Amino acid sequence: MYIVDLNCDMGESFGSYKIGQDEEIMKYVTSANIACGSHAGDPSIMKKTVRKAVEHGVGIGAHPGLPDLAGFGRRPMEISEEEAYDMVVYQIGALKGFVDAEGAKLQHVKPHGALFNMAAKKRTLADAIASAVYDIDPDLILFGLAGSELIKAGQSRGLRTASEVFSDRTYQQDGSLTSRRAANALLTDPEEAVKQVIRMIKENKVRTIQDVDININVHTICIHGDGPHAVDFANYITKALNDSEIKLQAIGKFL
Amino acid sequence: MYIVDLNCDMGESFGSYKIGQDEEIMKYVTSANIACGSHAGDPSIMKKTVRKAVEHGVGIGAHPGLPDLAGFGRRPMEISEEEAYDMVVYQIGALKGFVDAEGAKLQHVKPHGALFNMAAKKRTLADAIASAVYDIDPDLILFGLAGSELIKAGQSRGLRTASEVFSDRTYQQDGSLTSRRAANALLTDPEEAVKQVIRMIKENKVRTIQDVDININVHTICIHGDGPHAVDFANYITKALNDSEIKLQAIGKFL
Amino acid sequence: MYIVDLNCDMGESFGSYKIGQDEEIMKYVTSANIACGSHAGDPSIMKKTVRKAVEHGVGIGAHPGLPDLAGFGRRPMEISEEEAYDMVVYQIGALKGFVDAEGAKLQHVKPHGALFNMAAKKRTLADAIASAVYDIDPDLILFGLAGSELIKAGQSRGLRTASEVFSDRTYQQDGSLTSRRAANALLTDPEEAVKQVIRMIKENKVRTIQDVDININVHTICIHGDGPHAVDFANYITKALNDSEIKLQAIGKFL
Amino acid sequence: MYIVDLNCDMGESFGSYKIGQDEEIMKYVTSANIACGSHAGDPSIMKKTVRKAVEHGVGIGAHPGLPDLAGFGRRPMEISEEEAYDMVVYQIGALKGFVDAEGAKLQHVKPHGALFNMAAKKRTLADAIASAVYDIDPDLILFGLAGSELIKAGQSRGLRTASEVFSDRTYQQDGSLTSRRAANALLTDPEEAVKQVIRMIKENKVRTIQDVDININVHTICIHGDGPHAVDFANYITKALNDSEIKLQAIGKFL
Repeated sequence: MYIVDLNCDMGESFGSYKIGQDEEIMKYVTSANIACGSHAGDPSIMKKTVRKAVEHGVGIGAHPGLPDLAGFGRRPMEISEEEAYDMVVYQIGALKGFVDAEGAKLQHVKPHGALFNMAAKKRTLADAIASAVYDIDPDLILFGLAGSELIKAGQSRGLRTASEVFSDRTYQQDGSLTSRRAANALLTDPEEAVKQVIRMIKENKVRTIQDVDININVHTICIHGDGPHAVDFANYITKALNDSEIKLQAIGKFL
Repeated sequence: MYIVDLNCDMGESFGSYKIGQDEEIMKYVTSANIACGSHAGDPSIMKKTVRKAVEHGVGIGAHPGLPDLAGFGRRPMEISEEEAYDMVVYQIGALKGFVDAEGAKLQHVKPHGALFNMAAKKRTLADAIASAVYDIDPDLILFGLAGSELIKAGQSRGLRTASEVFSDRTYQQDGSLTSRRAANALLTDPEEAVKQVIRMIKENKVRTIQDVDININVHTICIHGDGPHAVDFANYITKALNDSEIKLQAIGKFL
Repeated sequence: MYIVDLNCDMGESFGSYKIGQDEEIMKYVTSANIACGSHAGDPSIMKKTVRKAVEHGVGIGAHPGLPDLAGFGRRPMEISEEEAYDMVVYQIGALKGFVDAEGAKLQHVKPHGALFNMAAKKRTLADAIASAVYDIDPDLILFGLAGSELIKAGQSRGLRTASEVFSDRTYQQDGSLTSRRAANALLTDPEEAVKQVIRMIKENKVRTIQDVDININVHTICIHGDGPHAVDFANYITKALNDSEIKLQAIGKFL
Repeated sequence: MYIVDLNCDMGESFGSYKIGQDEEIMKYVTSANIACGSHAGDPSIMKKTVRKAVEHGVGIGAHPGLPDLAGFGRRPMEISEEEAYDMVVYQIGALKGFVDAEGAKLQHVKPHGALFNMAAKKRTLADAIASAVYDIDPDLILFGLAGSELIKAGQSRGLRTASEVFSDRTYQQDGSLTSRRAANALLTDPEEAVKQVIRMIKENKVRTIQDVDININVHTICIHGDGPHAVDFANYITKALNDSEIKLQAIGKFL
């Protein structure tokens, strides 16, 4: 029997602006990464999303991002390590406010977008983020790209870490994701996407774009909550994993 | 022997923009109301201000305001009770992140500017704010204008409350502050300001603009940290209170 | 033969966030009110929306609003007359940048949401807005609620003004719109909505909630671009007006 | 007789936050680069600064920057060429609104901070900025670092360009400024700073950090408006240039 966590970015609406189908997706995932009001999200959405997660027994995570709502936190910015530490403490704290107010417990932290990608490669930035997480609460689990500097930084800081894989992205030989600008960045066939994930879980291997296998660790799988087929895919992958004797559970319960 | 708390708004700088003389003022006050990134403040200033407060043994408070940096949170906005609750939870949570990261304890919450004034008069708004404070941590102390709806809301929610008076403002017969737009809103003479405060503390009375006395409760006195004479006045009032056998202590230690 | 302008708010998306069906609605309206980056809109959306309007020969208007993206410019804020003047000049200027860059001409200005409603009732605020419009370009047409202070302020400043009516809102005896919070604020039946509009155009009368007729001036009709039936209603009302010998034309061509 | 323009960044205050000594500096410079509300500035400051410039007969420039108030536009961000074009049109347009409202004329555009530096090196970004300037008004003068890609892009787009030098910065052999992070980035001795400037103007040469001379073009000199000695230095350099038979004039009058 295998166990894995299934996570999705949530709470990314803002004011009158809606993104994602949180209501529906919440039924399938075991962990939710909730935007914290910088790259997306606002206090009202945060509260509602935390409440929904509590209601569904879904593990709650803070999803801090760069302060760039117009760019949805996807545009790399040159920030200092201290700025990274400060913005991550701020955003985790803000989300934790809602979690505390609901009498729930914050499970994990997953940086968003450009911050996630930058921290995958730059160790000093990863260290700053890991310290921010640790300083707020050393029991928090830090999510990072499998094999990334962020995972190493978290371990070296004494945090539990969750190696994350993407169901619908292709991989490079060095373990990084193929850039979204490349033609072959995405696996658009759901069946193929699920096959890749199952092999990662059961064999700890993924076939890269270069057509060689590399080793990969999997604690949690990321699916997307927007896009026209998001709910269908959530339904499809949870069924397929179940049928393959892979149990889905919030990371905090089995790590 | 009388005991009173002396508070000041702090951490109101933003990025490259500086406001206030926190370094200096921190030596005089017993409680600091730290801006939370909405009407003023940013994550880096918040961390630095929390650290300074810890260093000086000053009681730490969250100072949530309206989301209006351009207006410094001083322009009234029509927000719903739910929006008020949400923005207050968000901002307290964000500040608490830094307090937790420093291993310190959050002592109190004081709404800022227009939010403070609106909550002084509108009970439903005051109730929403009191609930936000209580839901994050029922041990927090809620600051409000002496005699205001916010104080009543806090008490009725089961919170400890601190009745605040202003050293340099004049009072109306109904206990409200004279509007800043009125010519006689401010006591500009430091001696007169201190005399008013001492009488409020010792006799629980203040002479209003209408030239009658009203009763007033005092747990904490607000001084201002900006302006050319802020540090001088902080020095002057602390000496004068000491000389009048009024002991200054962080509210959390004696309430 | 009657002539009237048909306008709709446009360009209200922001970054990754989409609102409205501008592509479709643009085919039906004769004037577009384009958000200017404060209550909604960003530089990229503004450029695209201006280009679409040029392409469809639609009259281009600036749609300035309060600096409150989270509240979509719908929450009243206490701003000074000078602040109103300044924010309106800023936003018209920004939109005019794109209009100039496309070699087109700005036709009108219509304040948004809370700014529109506040300016309908408060003459000093209306005067500040009218001055901002006039100072940028005295040839601009100012849109305001029919019978409002904003219309009077525009006329008194020497601007051409366009009296606006709403197809789907009910009216009070004093000419104001029924508050959105009231149960009977909206005409949800398209047929009824169109009948009201046609009567306003042909008879200059509208039946109020109090069941009496009042006089009303109509230069331009506002329809909404969001909501599931927006495109259908745009199609329906343009057909109905056509069938009633009411010609739709951009306000700048017939005022 | 030599002629040169003397420029300074202005209008960088925001709401209650003050930066710079615009009142004083305005007396010395011949051109003002006015922040446009993204990296700094707000509508009210923009209006006041435009008015001051008009009053002093100072050439008015738009000073567009990255949308990063917290970082004062100094943190490089990865933006697309289209985003750069759009944000520059937006910001020039907004400032031009105030210039038009005052019946004045916009003279030039100078990108700010990280946008200025990125455009000095990346030609595609420089082209996007040059196009934005040209599309709004082909009579505008584009400021860029002497020898930079931005100057080349402006010339190739058909704009008049002004090569800018810095009085208080040291130069590298490739014509770039020494990074602010380097110890020898700044000339702190006013006399040395002025000597460097005068040689650049009269001999078109500057001695680099590598102790070799390179050629340099000078149309405009940048001085700084903040810092404790800003006004003194403005006074000092204008006197020194006068004494060296170098006439100061707004760039639009002699280019």
